[in-house]
Amino acid sequence: MSDLVTFGETMLRLSPPGQERIERATELEFRAAGAESNVAVNAGRLGVEATWLSKLPESPLGRKVTATVESQGADADVVWSEEGRQGTYYLEQASKPRPTNVVYDRANAAVTTATADELPTERIERADCFYTSGITPALSDTLEGTTADLLELAQDAGTTTVFDVNYRSKLWTPAEARPVLESLFPAIDVLVTAERDARAVLGLEGDAERIARDLADEWGFETVVVTRGAAGALALHAGDVTEQPAIEADTYDAVGTGDAFVGGFLTRRLQGDGVPAALEYAAAVASLKRTIPGDTALVTPDEVEAVLEKTDDGIAR
Amino acid sequence: MSDLVTFGETMLRLSPPGQERIERATELEFRAAGAESNVAVNAGRLGVEATWLSKLPESPLGRKVTATVESQGADADVVWSEEGRQGTYYLEQASKPRPTNVVYDRANAAVTTATADELPTERIERADCFYTSGITPALSDTLEGTTADLLELAQDAGTTTVFDVNYRSKLWTPAEARPVLESLFPAIDVLVTAERDARAVLGLEGDAERIARDLADEWGFETVVVTRGAAGALALHAGDVTEQPAIEADTYDAVGTGDAFVGGFLTRRLQGDGVPAALEYAAAVASLKRTIPGDTALVTPDEVEAVLEKTDDGIAR
Amino acid sequence: MSDLVTFGETMLRLSPPGQERIERATELEFRAAGAESNVAVNAGRLGVEATWLSKLPESPLGRKVTATVESQGADADVVWSEEGRQGTYYLEQASKPRPTNVVYDRANAAVTTATADELPTERIERADCFYTSGITPALSDTLEGTTADLLELAQDAGTTTVFDVNYRSKLWTPAEARPVLESLFPAIDVLVTAERDARAVLGLEGDAERIARDLADEWGFETVVVTRGAAGALALHAGDVTEQPAIEADTYDAVGTGDAFVGGFLTRRLQGDGVPAALEYAAAVASLKRTIPGDTALVTPDEVEAVLEKTDDGIAR
Amino acid sequence: MSDLVTFGETMLRLSPPGQERIERATELEFRAAGAESNVAVNAGRLGVEATWLSKLPESPLGRKVTATVESQGADADVVWSEEGRQGTYYLEQASKPRPTNVVYDRANAAVTTATADELPTERIERADCFYTSGITPALSDTLEGTTADLLELAQDAGTTTVFDVNYRSKLWTPAEARPVLESLFPAIDVLVTAERDARAVLGLEGDAERIARDLADEWGFETVVVTRGAAGALALHAGDVTEQPAIEADTYDAVGTGDAFVGGFLTRRLQGDGVPAALEYAAAVASLKRTIPGDTALVTPDEVEAVLEKTDDGIAR
Amino acid sequence: MSDLVTFGETMLRLSPPGQERIERATELEFRAAGAESNVAVNAGRLGVEATWLSKLPESPLGRKVTATVESQGADADVVWSEEGRQGTYYLEQASKPRPTNVVYDRANAAVTTATADELPTERIERADCFYTSGITPALSDTLEGTTADLLELAQDAGTTTVFDVNYRSKLWTPAEARPVLESLFPAIDVLVTAERDARAVLGLEGDAERIARDLADEWGFETVVVTRGAAGALALHAGDVTEQPAIEADTYDAVGTGDAFVGGFLTRRLQGDGVPAALEYAAAVASLKRTIPGDTALVTPDEVEAVLEKTDDGIAR
Amino acid sequence: MSDLVTFGETMLRLSPPGQERIERATELEFRAAGAESNVAVNAGRLGVEATWLSKLPESPLGRKVTATVESQGADADVVWSEEGRQGTYYLEQASKPRPTNVVYDRANAAVTTATADELPTERIERADCFYTSGITPALSDTLEGTTADLLELAQDAGTTTVFDVNYRSKLWTPAEARPVLESLFPAIDVLVTAERDARAVLGLEGDAERIARDLADEWGFETVVVTRGAAGALALHAGDVTEQPAIEADTYDAVGTGDAFVGGFLTRRLQGDGVPAALEYAAAVASLKRTIPGDTALVTPDEVEAVLEKTDDGIAR
Repeated sequence: MSDLVTFGETMLRLSPPGQERIERATELEFRAAGAESNVAVNAGRLGVEATWLSKLPESPLGRKVTATVESQGADADVVWSEEGRQGTYYLEQASKPRPTNVVYDRANAAVTTATADELPTERIERADCFYTSGITPALSDTLEGTTADLLELAQDAGTTTVFDVNYRSKLWTPAEARPVLESLFPAIDVLVTAERDARAVLGLEGDAERIARDLADEWGFETVVVTRGAAGALALHAGDVTEQPAIEADTYDAVGTGDAFVGGFLTRRLQGDGVPAALEYAAAVASLKRTIPGDTALVTPDEVEAVLEKTDDGIAR
Repeated sequence: MSDLVTFGETMLRLSPPGQERIERATELEFRAAGAESNVAVNAGRLGVEATWLSKLPESPLGRKVTATVESQGADADVVWSEEGRQGTYYLEQASKPRPTNVVYDRANAAVTTATADELPTERIERADCFYTSGITPALSDTLEGTTADLLELAQDAGTTTVFDVNYRSKLWTPAEARPVLESLFPAIDVLVTAERDARAVLGLEGDAERIARDLADEWGFETVVVTRGAAGALALHAGDVTEQPAIEADTYDAVGTGDAFVGGFLTRRLQGDGVPAALEYAAAVASLKRTIPGDTALVTPDEVEAVLEKTDDGIAR
Repeated sequence: MSDLVTFGETMLRLSPPGQERIERATELEFRAAGAESNVAVNAGRLGVEATWLSKLPESPLGRKVTATVESQGADADVVWSEEGRQGTYYLEQASKPRPTNVVYDRANAAVTTATADELPTERIERADCFYTSGITPALSDTLEGTTADLLELAQDAGTTTVFDVNYRSKLWTPAEARPVLESLFPAIDVLVTAERDARAVLGLEGDAERIARDLADEWGFETVVVTRGAAGALALHAGDVTEQPAIEADTYDAVGTGDAFVGGFLTRRLQGDGVPAALEYAAAVASLKRTIPGDTALVTPDEVEAVLEKTDDGIAR
Repeated sequence: MSDLVTFGETMLRLSPPGQERIERATELEFRAAGAESNVAVNAGRLGVEATWLSKLPESPLGRKVTATVESQGADADVVWSEEGRQGTYYLEQASKPRPTNVVYDRANAAVTTATADELPTERIERADCFYTSGITPALSDTLEGTTADLLELAQDAGTTTVFDVNYRSKLWTPAEARPVLESLFPAIDVLVTAERDARAVLGLEGDAERIARDLADEWGFETVVVTRGAAGALALHAGDVTEQPAIEADTYDAVGTGDAFVGGFLTRRLQGDGVPAALEYAAAVASLKRTIPGDTALVTPDEVEAVLEKTDDGIAR
Repeated sequence: MSDLVTFGETMLRLSPPGQERIERATELEFRAAGAESNVAVNAGRLGVEATWLSKLPESPLGRKVTATVESQGADADVVWSEEGRQGTYYLEQASKPRPTNVVYDRANAAVTTATADELPTERIERADCFYTSGITPALSDTLEGTTADLLELAQDAGTTTVFDVNYRSKLWTPAEARPVLESLFPAIDVLVTAERDARAVLGLEGDAERIARDLADEWGFETVVVTRGAAGALALHAGDVTEQPAIEADTYDAVGTGDAFVGGFLTRRLQGDGVPAALEYAAAVASLKRTIPGDTALVTPDEVEAVLEKTDDGIAR
Repeated sequence: MSDLVTFGETMLRLSPPGQERIERATELEFRAAGAESNVAVNAGRLGVEATWLSKLPESPLGRKVTATVESQGADADVVWSEEGRQGTYYLEQASKPRPTNVVYDRANAAVTTATADELPTERIERADCFYTSGITPALSDTLEGTTADLLELAQDAGTTTVFDVNYRSKLWTPAEARPVLESLFPAIDVLVTAERDARAVLGLEGDAERIARDLADEWGFETVVVTRGAAGALALHAGDVTEQPAIEADTYDAVGTGDAFVGGFLTRRLQGDGVPAALEYAAAVASLKRTIPGDTALVTPDEVEAVLEKTDDGIAR
């Protein structure tokens, strides 16, 4: 049975309608999202049995998070806590030249105190694949340790470990991030990184292939995926490089595109496809995500196939 | 007096806000639309006395339909039925590469049992023009017969008959559609067809002019209009071919563009214009439709004129 | 392990905002609800492991149903069907003297073709309790048989069978309903009925206790619960009668009150309480339901306890 | 054929959601309403062929008015004007002790220049009944003359004239209103007045019956209806007094209750009923209106009958 | 010149529409409110020059707070901080038997680090009146000190000090609160307390008058106001007791009623009225508040006068 | 201290959601805006102490205007009037080929009777800069005089006078506008004009530089700014010409772009920058405005700097 377990923080997402500014908004869209539950949902919808692990406050805010994750196609297996907040972020959608703006309000979230001891780690050990991202160790010293613990116990159990660098400049500096990330690398099988993060945070140079090869050489990753936004992605696996162009999309909501890519990639890898096929599938899921509000690719396998087959003619009726 | 009567199904239209997915939506926009009432409304607003005939369930849902049609500028003259449902469709607006998706829930609508006997056919006989589309005979065996009956009685009364092929792949296959459509052709004066439908359903080949000529030759249509989406339209009338490019639009809601084209075309034909002027007017109405939510071109004659005269400079104040 | 399985139709629920009329509404609230999934959700939130079984169309509409049920605290284990519609109802909230109005659009729903063979009946057999209502056999001849089959296989497996008469005058007449319901009674352990339905449909007379005793005497029910709206409820169990007054509520949305009552009652029975304690708990859940929009009692066990302990003073801060 | 024609101003109605204050609102509900179109709509829905006459600006604002009236069940036959504004009112719904507040912005509306010459007065002459209210002559000197002209030509044509005093303290003082109203009384057959207006504006004393008899004696009205809010209404016709209690309602939106009463009363009078039956029907329509947002009683004849028969039990399903 | 300065925390207020639950809500109303800015706004609208002091994060969230306060009629003079969060609360409106629920998310707000040194204390010294509440010292040790400092410097400057006990059980226990509050009492001129808080937190007994006299005797308050919810309020001033019944209201949003009472009371005291007249005015402002969404009494002096004069008759038009 | 005072009309702005048509809209967005308060707000947010002067009706509609202006960062110092309306405009957002449509409903606004005598002109005299636009004298004869009076007293007091031609074809013709504008020019220091207006209204010819030089030569302006939409702007100051290209933006709401440009320009001029730097800053503010709903550039100085430094990469997190 294919099986994916992820661990990380999922926040409430509060955003004004359209491109309204927070300071003038009188109502906010209310969603919940986080890299690791996004990946679980994205894969869960496409045929993978996917579970997201976390720690949440025992409150209506925490229940909003699990209700959201479970309604979208993944399992939520969380530790309920009397202590700690529910992490939150405010999102102002914008258009050029104004950047989409994220205001984090995530300090002291319940998840920042989560330890491997209290989590249902047997689910990781029984899984085919375990995923978390560089956001998790950035959130607290405790989580830095927990991330390391979970990756190690996954590795020990033979569960493939997947890690997305996902650098967030509002959480830590490159100088803070690099040693922490590198301390985790030995326990990671599949590394995903934006080319930009590889340069700015990991100090790598050269083109995407050079970056992938340097990472694989230094850390022994089984697979390295380097994402390049509109320029597509490149993967290095067993010495072979695959390049995958991005699939063009009219963007409606860009947040979560990277998680959609990872969710699609892992889905096909877990279903037995090779890296090139998985990359192409990932690109299709990512392009669909950009057409959907919220952080997840709320799509069906048929819809991904239609993108790959380019069968669409604008209106299906 | 110019006078247009149309007959067909009008459905409720339920659509999530923005590009939200149905499965996650918590509220739906609620409109009513159908090709034949769209054409009546589009023409009715532009100066034609237009009436839409149909059969609806005696319920709040049926009343929503007539209230919608009558508030927009056409008359609704419907048979109220104790039996049968109100046809409904769900619409998910999307953007590339995700197609706008229509989920039909229209089986067993009251209109599927409508017969010529119960309809106010004298309105058709007294009209200058009668319009229906290929959707109507696709809905039920009864409606296949009713469509034939209405076209024939219109023809017998000297009312010009206009028919838009409007092929819908979710209703029937090309193999099912072709013989039904061809059985209706002898009673039709003006045929409108998408170039794509002409190929896929009617089995025609060659360019748009070839298609138009083949259709006119085989069935004796007085006028054939071949629409080609962004490539514009072409009409064959009295042996003369007119090509009309599409007028560029930033699309806000594409549904109903074809009906806007037909509504504009018939308006000007009924007002005495020749085919070339009517085609140009149709292109202007169609381009305006694309800027308006819902299925109809909720515009005034002045606004169409402004498009034709290109007088607009972005903000009128 | 306590365990509840339910089976029945869950519909989409479309309702205008506030007390607006359907025919003038331009947007509709979009929810999903049905007696049997309501009961599963209501119990699932209060500590019971609850699963709802059904058959749904493979479409965004069907997925809206499962997403709704699963986000609220019950499992949805459904057969996905290529055939059949998604049942829908329109709800117009109103106030005296205008009745809240339900417009059903549920004919030919996928669930109407569900047979015991295709359902995961082993879940019923392994459960402590199986629940369905009189709505289910009213929906189709097939479902009449399926209801009988499921009740029998539950009974054979030693699963307690619970049945709420839930008479719906828009689905069938008392004369149609009575023989069908009575044919199911031998396989039922716990019967719930509104006093009004007992009179109008089952032809019983006398006060609520008389009704309960007559039902128990004639059909051998282990427990009979007679609900009386604002007058509370009465239960007969092992020869003992318990009366439970209704708990006063300022009603915000009355739909689903009966299902909240049953959900609360079953929760406590499954958790080992006697009938009197379960009735009181049921009354508390029902009163809370009336304060919440939608068909389910979206509450926590703590909130139910607070009602029973009358600790509330208006604002908790 | 029964036939009602009304004449008067219909305004745009802008109101914040819920009980929000205008100064803080960021969105407004957008409707259109006025006493005379309300009466036409209310009667039109209940079986009367009803037409509202007015003068509107040729603009999207004027078209909003006709679209609203026509979607609800009456005909709008209006003079389109290049001059003059579209009258507007802002409505703040409130609850005790805060009064619902109306802010008029209706000065210089196009209708204030309407003369009998430009209106389709033949529709009044051919009608069974002509209705206007005391709001109309309050709006301008021109309309004071037009009101007199229309009442006279109706009277000359044998059309029954109906007039509701409808005193508005934000439009004129009692001292201004009384002579104008009294100058119109000779041409009026059926007078409707709130008891409060009869006292404050017309200077009458005594109880409602005394008021009705004094009015009938002095001015020779065929029928006098005195409305008394929660205390019901009283009619004097052919020397006979009928008292009609109000039918209790949980009020959702009180605006337009009086127009619903008149619409119901005229419907039944035009359909041949006597005054007592018409009064009872009027009370039912008025009570239903109070449950519906907006100024009109958007109901069906069946719904009115259900109120009269008290068949409702809270939820119709 | 009359002049009121207040100091305290103002939070964002996020609430689902109607009585929806947070865990199912998909949009939230977005306001900002806090006891001390509420009092400043309430007085500011009624004729007092009112300023609210606080410390806020330099972010869109902080700016939402000042925009809200300044748009409603008070000045906001805040210290902008790079550190600390924006306090937030989630509000679930409910109805009996479900309590309106407040979920605080206010830990580590920027204001919790505010010291007298960094605040514009000269505004307090120049004011006629300084107001804060028992919420402020409950928020942090720093704020406990700051509250004491501000009250003392106000007292030293001859500014009347007003303090509302405003006990919040989700912030501290009675045992924690009592010594802190009592340490502040010597610097307070006017004490406002709910009767319930006086009992539960301050350990007082007897009826409201007894409580007021005991407080005045022990701490030397110039004025003591004891509020009793629906039972009205009682004030002790210069030895005289005044009782003021509550003014009945159909409640739309109860939050902020106490602050409206205080705002009204201080307005009239600052304008020179005696305690009885100020209490009556306070009751009117409080009753109006209950009809208005949000935490403030968004009213005009004329509207308060109308309540006192009982001139309202339901609809003002 | 830098200091800007503006004078002019601010209207309510009512707009349907998205691109819906007014005649079908059922709710309207409710904002307030006008060129002169826009400029005050735009500058006020960016560091200038800015005050807007006007005359408003004493009503909730007038209060909506001041609440809006004050919540955004400018002071509103208005004369409250018992007479006159609140000017209003309806806005239909559209896309090519349909123009965004403004329907004015501003006749007889209170401001049209404002005279210099009743305004707080000492604020103008003490200011560094006074701004109004060509809309103001177009509104009434009284305002034509008031505009002249205010410009003269500003000039006499040594306050820099700034005037934007802002021609509105729905208010007056070029032939009406030109003599009025030219009569004001002698009192103006800084003239801003669209190139198009300079040609159509002022009768100038040649390119933008030619226009600027001709204006400066004829009227002696200290600075002339000619705006050219997408082609950027050009300024002539002390004989030197500066050209500033427009900064590209994905437009969300174009209304108010010109006012954003002026607000940005004046901000930097008042802060001591030269014309070239001020022009560049103005272009950045204008480009940001286009991404924000409503008429004002609701931005921070940091956001403007980020545009100038091109540091944005799409999502800031």
